[in-house]
Amino acid sequence: MTRGKLQHPLFQRVALIGIGLIGSSLCHAMRRGALAGTIVGYARTAETRAKALQLGLIDQAYTTAAEAARDADLVILCAPVGAMGALALDIGPALKPGAIVTDVGSVKGAIVRDCAGHIPAGVHFIPGHPIAGTEQSGPEAGFATLFDGRWCILTPNDATDPAALERLKGFWEACGSKVDIMTAEHHDMVLAITSHVPHVLAFNIVNTAAHLAEVTDSEVIKFSAGGFRDSTRLAASDPTMWRDVFLNNKEAVLEMLARFSENLSLMQRAIRFGDGDAIFKTITEAREIRRGVIQAGQDTAAPDFGRRAPPDGDEKPVKQAPAK
Amino acid sequence: MTRGKLQHPLFQRVALIGIGLIGSSLCHAMRRGALAGTIVGYARTAETRAKALQLGLIDQAYTTAAEAARDADLVILCAPVGAMGALALDIGPALKPGAIVTDVGSVKGAIVRDCAGHIPAGVHFIPGHPIAGTEQSGPEAGFATLFDGRWCILTPNDATDPAALERLKGFWEACGSKVDIMTAEHHDMVLAITSHVPHVLAFNIVNTAAHLAEVTDSEVIKFSAGGFRDSTRLAASDPTMWRDVFLNNKEAVLEMLARFSENLSLMQRAIRFGDGDAIFKTITEAREIRRGVIQAGQDTAAPDFGRRAPPDGDEKPVKQAPAK
Repeated sequence: MTRGKLQHPLFQRVALIGIGLIGSSLCHAMRRGALAGTIVGYARTAETRAKALQLGLIDQAYTTAAEAARDADLVILCAPVGAMGALALDIGPALKPGAIVTDVGSVKGAIVRDCAGHIPAGVHFIPGHPIAGTEQSGPEAGFATLFDGRWCILTPNDATDPAALERLKGFWEACGSKVDIMTAEHHDMVLAITSHVPHVLAFNIVNTAAHLAEVTDSEVIKFSAGGFRDSTRLAASDPTMWRDVFLNNKEAVLEMLARFSENLSLMQRAIRFGDGDAIFKTITEAREIRRGVIQAGQDTAAPDFGRRAPPDGDEKPVKQAPAK
Repeated sequence: MTRGKLQHPLFQRVALIGIGLIGSSLCHAMRRGALAGTIVGYARTAETRAKALQLGLIDQAYTTAAEAARDADLVILCAPVGAMGALALDIGPALKPGAIVTDVGSVKGAIVRDCAGHIPAGVHFIPGHPIAGTEQSGPEAGFATLFDGRWCILTPNDATDPAALERLKGFWEACGSKVDIMTAEHHDMVLAITSHVPHVLAFNIVNTAAHLAEVTDSEVIKFSAGGFRDSTRLAASDPTMWRDVFLNNKEAVLEMLARFSENLSLMQRAIRFGDGDAIFKTITEAREIRRGVIQAGQDTAAPDFGRRAPPDGDEKPVKQAPAK
């Protein structure tokens, strides 16, 4: 589906349940593409509701999720994974027949477990997950291009209405995403290795460094350009969101961590016994995957990893790679 | 020491033994600051020697390290850690009394072990390590600003001549670096946690992902924006360099990996038994360290981690954070 063929707006009334980084970015993307007639929202705090109105993200703010969801054609749950079940319970009775309910949670099996039972018959519940984000949070963190060129995964089941699925797919494409369809179970396995385990490792390497007696925190920070800052990048992410992800994708995360630990043991053994060939082979294989990430347009190969000096730092700008 | 007070050039004749990313960046930085009267170099392959001459990095190329080092006032070993001992053996007899010999290796204890015995009395051997780099390699990868605002560690010992140390410190500062002084042993401990272990983990997570039966390589690459691409960034680094680093900083790397694994076990246990408070605490502590890295000017807090879309990808540019 291309944007030219779309009937605008795609949905007359869209309700966002939660207005953080993803919710506010969706508002910007919907405004950019004129995808919604009216955008309404629920946020837990009065501060977020006021900010969302002030920024023009939503046209109307509600103090309960049920009020926000009432009469909406599309309801998007944009809350931490652990909060989704209670929100679904709240909105269930208010949902309009024929409405589509989706979410943006990083785990899908647990969302189905916690939410599906609260969505009445006649309402289309199709879980989703845009693979996009920054380490920022809150309604001011959003921007219209967050989803451009990134993948969004939808996880329908055998009973999902094909027309509703196609409509939701078109919505995400109009927000700039590429859309992939898979089962909730497969999603949770894929995300465990591509997202959840990298975050576990990042939190863990940073904390290991922080608790060393031999090396001060100040030294860790000063010399972070040697590789550590790449680990710390992920470690800046929201604690509530990630706690919920780990707790709600437990089996897949533990399985992937077990495999990681097995491989790490092999690497430790190769270092201990001086097996340079095994180490060289491991590094060379890893490089190939990295090349694939760059070729797929999911990252940049610019020098210094495309990282600019901070605007208020004491560094000079880094030369960028010429366009190919 | 500020640049205004320097006597130019700082060294009449500088010899680079090896002309890769760091060697070529040093050439650019020396040209920028007019720090050397003449820059000469040795490279293992004819191709690199020709390229270094063609790019104007060096004024003269030699086919042996000894010829390049002869009569030089400053000799900088810019080769993989495992190659340094043989190079020191080669240049030893050719070194001029009063010359300074340094290196840029990522390990310092092994460099002292492999090189110090080959440097004759009357020549100042002061190991060094600029904490700067990209995942690129070769003489074309260098740029003048690579060291700007980054730290360079020098590891003199009790017998080091203070005047020679001061002169080498001034050289690195004129190249844009901030300079820190510590023992070789402490350097190897600090770098094990800030650089070597993050690289081990990056190689390992990428390879774990590559060998999954349940998840295809194509899926890993497509959904890498969820965190995995941050891990793959480090995994693109040079295999020979990193093999040598791991083998030559074995004790410190294994010690830090052991601590990392202990902490990872605690995290796995918290996930398995649903201890949300412990997980939340771990993540929150990690965030504090990340904030320190940004405040110290060693990274940027821009949305999408300051990462621009690749110039030839299918993505639109990502909005950057306004300057504070």
